[in-house]
Amino acid sequence: MEKNMYSRPLSLRSMKINDKFWKQEMEVVRKEVIPYQWAALNNQVEGAAPSFCMRNFKVAGKQNKERKEQGKAFIEPKYTFRGFESLPEDPNHPEDKFYGFVFQDSDFSKWIEAVGYSLTQHPDPKLEAIADGAIDIVCAAQQDDGYLDTYYIINGKDKIFTNLKDHHELYCMGHLIEGAVAYYEATGKDKLLKAAARFADYAAAHFGPEEGKCKGYPGHEIAEMALVRLYEVTKEPRYLELSKFFIDERGKRPYYFDKEHPEEVKKGHENDLRYFYNQAHLPVRQQDEAVGHAVRAVYLYSGMADIARLTEDETLYQSCEKLWDSMANEKMYITGGIGGTQIGEAFSYPYDLPNDTAYAETCASIGLVFFARRMLEIKPDAKYANVMERALYNGILSGMALDGKSFFYVNPLEVLPEASHKDERKFHVKPVRQKWFGCACCPPNLARLVSSIGSYTYTEKEDTLFVHLYMGSELTKKVGDKDANVAITSELPWDGNVEIAVEAKDTDFVLALRIPDWCGGNYTVDGIEKDEMSEKDGYLYVKKAWSEKDVLKLHFSMPLLLMEADEKVREDAGKVAVLRGPIVYCLEEVDNGKDLHLLEVNPDGKYEIKDSEICGNPVKVVEMNGFRVVDTAKKDGELYHVYKRKEKEAVELKFVPYYTWANRGENEMMVWVRV
Amino acid sequence: MEKNMYSRPLSLRSMKINDKFWKQEMEVVRKEVIPYQWAALNNQVEGAAPSFCMRNFKVAGKQNKERKEQGKAFIEPKYTFRGFESLPEDPNHPEDKFYGFVFQDSDFSKWIEAVGYSLTQHPDPKLEAIADGAIDIVCAAQQDDGYLDTYYIINGKDKIFTNLKDHHELYCMGHLIEGAVAYYEATGKDKLLKAAARFADYAAAHFGPEEGKCKGYPGHEIAEMALVRLYEVTKEPRYLELSKFFIDERGKRPYYFDKEHPEEVKKGHENDLRYFYNQAHLPVRQQDEAVGHAVRAVYLYSGMADIARLTEDETLYQSCEKLWDSMANEKMYITGGIGGTQIGEAFSYPYDLPNDTAYAETCASIGLVFFARRMLEIKPDAKYANVMERALYNGILSGMALDGKSFFYVNPLEVLPEASHKDERKFHVKPVRQKWFGCACCPPNLARLVSSIGSYTYTEKEDTLFVHLYMGSELTKKVGDKDANVAITSELPWDGNVEIAVEAKDTDFVLALRIPDWCGGNYTVDGIEKDEMSEKDGYLYVKKAWSEKDVLKLHFSMPLLLMEADEKVREDAGKVAVLRGPIVYCLEEVDNGKDLHLLEVNPDGKYEIKDSEICGNPVKVVEMNGFRVVDTAKKDGELYHVYKRKEKEAVELKFVPYYTWANRGENEMMVWVRV
Repeated sequence: MEKNMYSRPLSLRSMKINDKFWKQEMEVVRKEVIPYQWAALNNQVEGAAPSFCMRNFKVAGKQNKERKEQGKAFIEPKYTFRGFESLPEDPNHPEDKFYGFVFQDSDFSKWIEAVGYSLTQHPDPKLEAIADGAIDIVCAAQQDDGYLDTYYIINGKDKIFTNLKDHHELYCMGHLIEGAVAYYEATGKDKLLKAAARFADYAAAHFGPEEGKCKGYPGHEIAEMALVRLYEVTKEPRYLELSKFFIDERGKRPYYFDKEHPEEVKKGHENDLRYFYNQAHLPVRQQDEAVGHAVRAVYLYSGMADIARLTEDETLYQSCEKLWDSMANEKMYITGGIGGTQIGEAFSYPYDLPNDTAYAETCASIGLVFFARRMLEIKPDAKYANVMERALYNGILSGMALDGKSFFYVNPLEVLPEASHKDERKFHVKPVRQKWFGCACCPPNLARLVSSIGSYTYTEKEDTLFVHLYMGSELTKKVGDKDANVAITSELPWDGNVEIAVEAKDTDFVLALRIPDWCGGNYTVDGIEKDEMSEKDGYLYVKKAWSEKDVLKLHFSMPLLLMEADEKVREDAGKVAVLRGPIVYCLEEVDNGKDLHLLEVNPDGKYEIKDSEICGNPVKVVEMNGFRVVDTAKKDGELYHVYKRKEKEAVELKFVPYYTWANRGENEMMVWVRV
Repeated sequence: MEKNMYSRPLSLRSMKINDKFWKQEMEVVRKEVIPYQWAALNNQVEGAAPSFCMRNFKVAGKQNKERKEQGKAFIEPKYTFRGFESLPEDPNHPEDKFYGFVFQDSDFSKWIEAVGYSLTQHPDPKLEAIADGAIDIVCAAQQDDGYLDTYYIINGKDKIFTNLKDHHELYCMGHLIEGAVAYYEATGKDKLLKAAARFADYAAAHFGPEEGKCKGYPGHEIAEMALVRLYEVTKEPRYLELSKFFIDERGKRPYYFDKEHPEEVKKGHENDLRYFYNQAHLPVRQQDEAVGHAVRAVYLYSGMADIARLTEDETLYQSCEKLWDSMANEKMYITGGIGGTQIGEAFSYPYDLPNDTAYAETCASIGLVFFARRMLEIKPDAKYANVMERALYNGILSGMALDGKSFFYVNPLEVLPEASHKDERKFHVKPVRQKWFGCACCPPNLARLVSSIGSYTYTEKEDTLFVHLYMGSELTKKVGDKDANVAITSELPWDGNVEIAVEAKDTDFVLALRIPDWCGGNYTVDGIEKDEMSEKDGYLYVKKAWSEKDVLKLHFSMPLLLMEADEKVREDAGKVAVLRGPIVYCLEEVDNGKDLHLLEVNPDGKYEIKDSEICGNPVKVVEMNGFRVVDTAKKDGELYHVYKRKEKEAVELKFVPYYTWANRGENEMMVWVRV
């Protein structure tokens, strides 16, 4: 770790994203997802599982008011945890109780976070007014002592922090903080920020290394990185210390979760295995393999990276690097998806990356981007940005329909609809996107990520602007007491042309430009001299005496790539994936007919890259010579027959961008194709 | 159905099996499995889960005695069903209660059945004395009214027949009957037969079409075929009628299991799906796809075939044929394994035959043999015998270690030990055989099948002897009032030479000899004239004026076969399996090194068939030219890289018989190899 290398994301308020590709996604989120989400939080979506989120806050607020009037400490416990408090027969006439998942509060927090980001790019007084109203409802539920989780406020505060392992209490706090910080940074309004800080103060008084304080930590991580954000906006060390405490405490023996759940205690190795799920099997500084629930894992690793950076913790940073390599080099799908098994929505063993039973949760890839950005902050190495880009354009975008109206939790690389309907082992693999989920994590997570895409595009240190992703945008960066203005236009993801206009006269402004892995080192730069450029760790550093206006023209070569997996990946043996630039391609039945498993790529064949559109969205598709294997020895009604070398019928394969699949109805899809 | 075609198995007492291959298996069962099993039934196996089976009978017998002395109807209910009554802390000082699975009684029944068969081939007064002693213990537990299931006798008879769906009560009755009939047929002793008949009478009084009688049927089938055996030995129509009632009643609306478990009732389609598991989703005469728990399915189909034969039920027979074809043509592994998914130990959808997550339970293949034999009884068509042979030599024998000391439940076609240890989706796939199971179904099932192999080798009608399998044996068949003596010597499974000596002078004796599918119609017969032979449905019918002694010499060509699966079987695309005669071959790591998935068969290469041995057992192995795929483009630490046509290093592949795998330690195994 070299402190002088650290960089931080730019404020979204200092930039305008006007990228052809991403602006369109942001608009879909702004126009479709955010309003839809608000309707969902208020049970106003026909046919979707009611969230009861806002209603839970209202009920908690009402009881809060009554409680104060009656001068009670808290209402009588009615507490009975079922993980999900079943919904009322008639959603229009529910009782004054808590409904939904124990983490239902976080639906609001994710929404307000997305709203905050969106307002930085598209001011919208009407939306802001709705948000302020929602914040009032949420804050009215906060207890005098600062506690703010409606599940316990309504069901009985006596059980607070008694089930950290399963009850997502600190998870809800984490999301509340993230939402509050985002909304504050976007609008300057601090009502929710103060509420979140008071909840964090409550937690900080309860948990900590000091004698008598609880030695627990979150069962579902996120508080770790959220508290760091809260620290960075408030500068209150208490929050940094609490985050560090959670990270230091995790995985210590005896296991905190064993103390909390004596009934579940098992012996030795078996016990460790149980805590793989929560990454609590070992102290984090001893962890070197990504295991367990994938979303929890990358949320934890993100928090670890934050703490490593802020506390100069070399050992912790080394664990982050090992865990990164474990994921990126042994456990990541080519789409940037992570989580090879649906059991525990978790990482499988190294190189176990089944395509048709993949979990590859949208949220996990989003968390991977969080982690990548934080690793970039510590050390600008393109290996992080390459993965970040891969995940963004593929395993994450695939989570949302092109019209923003339906969503995937699970992002498989191969789908046979019949299997999804008939094989319980594949019930988690949906052949078409769903409207909304009772457990609504992926859609709002997508909303908050896409709306804040600029925080992943750029990071900065004193004199340097790091460009990790190329997207059309305008920004201003402070260099000393001067401004450097940068305007970028980009043809990504469809072509490798990028133009960067810089106005940085009389500054020591340094521009650090990522050289994408997919260009194979083939790129050209016009507008600067050789001696003004140097390469390091996959970044092109431009240091020069800037004039009134300098215009750099970059061209990154964007060849069609046939990729293969490490031979240890059994599921991909004898197969290739088609990539171009940041885009992973796939075959769909609608373009190529049934039985995609009988198709083969001809590696020596011709191909064409064509402008096309899918559901009105401009894309480039790939048409490539291939084969359909024909079995001439087959006898009907015979399951097995004597082998005969197959005949190969020449066919044109049509590949479409993976993120666009399943937008044209239910059908077969395949990323890894026989070669 | 043509009644004049019906045939029946020969009595095991009328034959002596002296086959090189099968006699050896029978000896392993006699010397290892049967004594081991008896020890297990009596909790005398170190380190194995105690069965408590015989002890449960003793406790029931003791309480029975007390009850009679106290003149009580039955003992007070202590009934609380947990599926498994947990074992005592100290197995040496347990309470007087029921221990183990609700179907623990059947461990005895399966053992006594195997003992009976074994005694027909190898008289053993010491073993017979032990068996008679065990029968006394079992019969002492029988209630005055004939009821005999220790789970309910000990826990409270008030709950009898109240949970047919899950409690295996009729399953235990079925196994008791099968064991009793086998022991009676072997020894002529009828004590257990009478006890079983009294239990069946009890059931016949409880269940039936008559008003006021219970309309239930077994949750786990077997009683259907067992009652037919009881009918055929006692000629008491009551048992045939009860079996037919169970078959006719299954799947009728409203579902009996819904009446029994109102709490579980779900609506419409979902409800049907639940009863796929028990094949109770539809009346059996409307079923045309093999679904649900595979063992239950084939046990049911066997009973259906019996009833179709005995009641001349054409519709029922047609269902049997459809269900057979559904299995054999769409849902059977090349090893004769059935059950593609571990979820419900069940059939998956057509052509879904994953190799590495297969269930393919040993017992299911055994049940497939039961069904095949019964279909052969109705119509001698080699298609049934071909499957029967395939299952016997492969998917069934693989269930037992060569030394008879350990067993597989699950018989996968591809195993990576790391996956079995680390991937919960493959925990059911064991890389090495287990000593014994708490739920001991497969080992005793193997024991009873192997000991009675002769019942599957031959069936007969008035003047005809059907030879379905070729194994060394001597037998006598009645033809009218004369005897026909037949002596067979066979070199199967390693060579296709069979010699059949017939002494049938002055009889109308007809010999029907199966022409195995694997010879591809290439065979020669010496010792008879052309006009004495005719072919039908895969059988060679020999009809002639027999002399003092005729000797037929058959030679079935036994080429090495590279087989491929129907292209709809995605898991086998681009792969072949190596077969020779009835034997399916596989690759093992111990012979071919790690990463079997990188090996390829060279379909144009040379091969040699060599005499060899595995753990002292003579076998033929196959050495074949092949390749090991070498990736020269791979970069260490990179999960994905640009495709480069692979180099292929020539290697000698060594294939060993599938049934011998995992006898040389834990290692990778693979049946379907890339080509």
